[in-house]
Amino acid sequence: MAAPELEQLIGLLSKLPALGPRSARRAVLSLLRQKESKFVPLVTAMQTVLEKVDACPVCGNMDTLKPCAICQDEKRDKTLVCVVQDVADLWALERAGAFKGVYHVLGGVLSALDGIGPDELSIDGLIQKVAQGTVKEIVLALPATVEGQTTVHYLSDRLSEYDVNVSTLSRGVPVGGELDYLDDGTLQLAFKARRNV
Amino acid sequence: MAAPELEQLIGLLSKLPALGPRSARRAVLSLLRQKESKFVPLVTAMQTVLEKVDACPVCGNMDTLKPCAICQDEKRDKTLVCVVQDVADLWALERAGAFKGVYHVLGGVLSALDGIGPDELSIDGLIQKVAQGTVKEIVLALPATVEGQTTVHYLSDRLSEYDVNVSTLSRGVPVGGELDYLDDGTLQLAFKARRNV
Repeated sequence: MAAPELEQLIGLLSKLPALGPRSARRAVLSLLRQKESKFVPLVTAMQTVLEKVDACPVCGNMDTLKPCAICQDEKRDKTLVCVVQDVADLWALERAGAFKGVYHVLGGVLSALDGIGPDELSIDGLIQKVAQGTVKEIVLALPATVEGQTTVHYLSDRLSEYDVNVSTLSRGVPVGGELDYLDDGTLQLAFKARRNV
Repeated sequence: MAAPELEQLIGLLSKLPALGPRSARRAVLSLLRQKESKFVPLVTAMQTVLEKVDACPVCGNMDTLKPCAICQDEKRDKTLVCVVQDVADLWALERAGAFKGVYHVLGGVLSALDGIGPDELSIDGLIQKVAQGTVKEIVLALPATVEGQTTVHYLSDRLSEYDVNVSTLSRGVPVGGELDYLDDGTLQLAFKARRNV
């Protein structure tokens, strides 16, 4: 019953992940209440990102630079490539500061249910990088789900014909994890992969 | 670790109600993945709303028209004024199609804890409307919380010196409500206000 311009904005916002029609409505009203302090900066920031940010042609990261800041960084080890599902995972690893090589964003994982096969993912680009011979190790940092692990097996199979070391993240008890709250699969894996103190 | 332009947009989005840093990040990435189909229409719709939509000077509704479409509607009963907490409640009543009068948005409810007194709300405007003598009934459609009911008492007190009928929404069992899942307060009120079939 609001103006069509408002209904259209609410409709577009409610299609974003984590927002539904009710929270989109609340968000729009909160923006309208603080036009100068909230709405104007948000629209400006959106325009800037829309104009300047694009996928890096080398790794798939989202950045204002082409290639992205990580691919351009002289200090990063270009012989070490970490394969991630999407840009959100890349950012999570960067926040953790756990990795000093470069990345390759797959754009998803293999999923028969969702109809995602090897052709839907950026796998050829990864193979080409490896075929050039400069990459020494590929770290497959994919989710510990059935689809993620299927993708790990598929990729390690495809990469086996090249002279490159393929690794994956270790599994076990997360930092701060109470054993009582962990699932059976994680506990079994953590026991199998136990190590001397 | 993302580009500063991206970090700024994520920071602004995460201040919206219902969005946190993680969901803001997911929303931005989902927009960047579908630039033409999602991002461009969203930015356009935001600009349109930012430029065209403002609070109605008569009732406080958000609309492109001034006064808003409801205040301008000849068919609506101007002698009947429904007082609501905010524009979201006004839209909810309009969606229900339950009311054919006009509205008055208070901009909140009285709350000692949050430091919201009568001067923070649009109460003077309501009194002025009533003092003009054309309003016959004021429906106080305020939330059934302690703050909402405090506001109902305060407003009915202020309005008692004018020749206007003051009413409030009925309380009871909501449509589809299982008695077993309702709180004691609602059940007690529903019993007290029981009526013949």
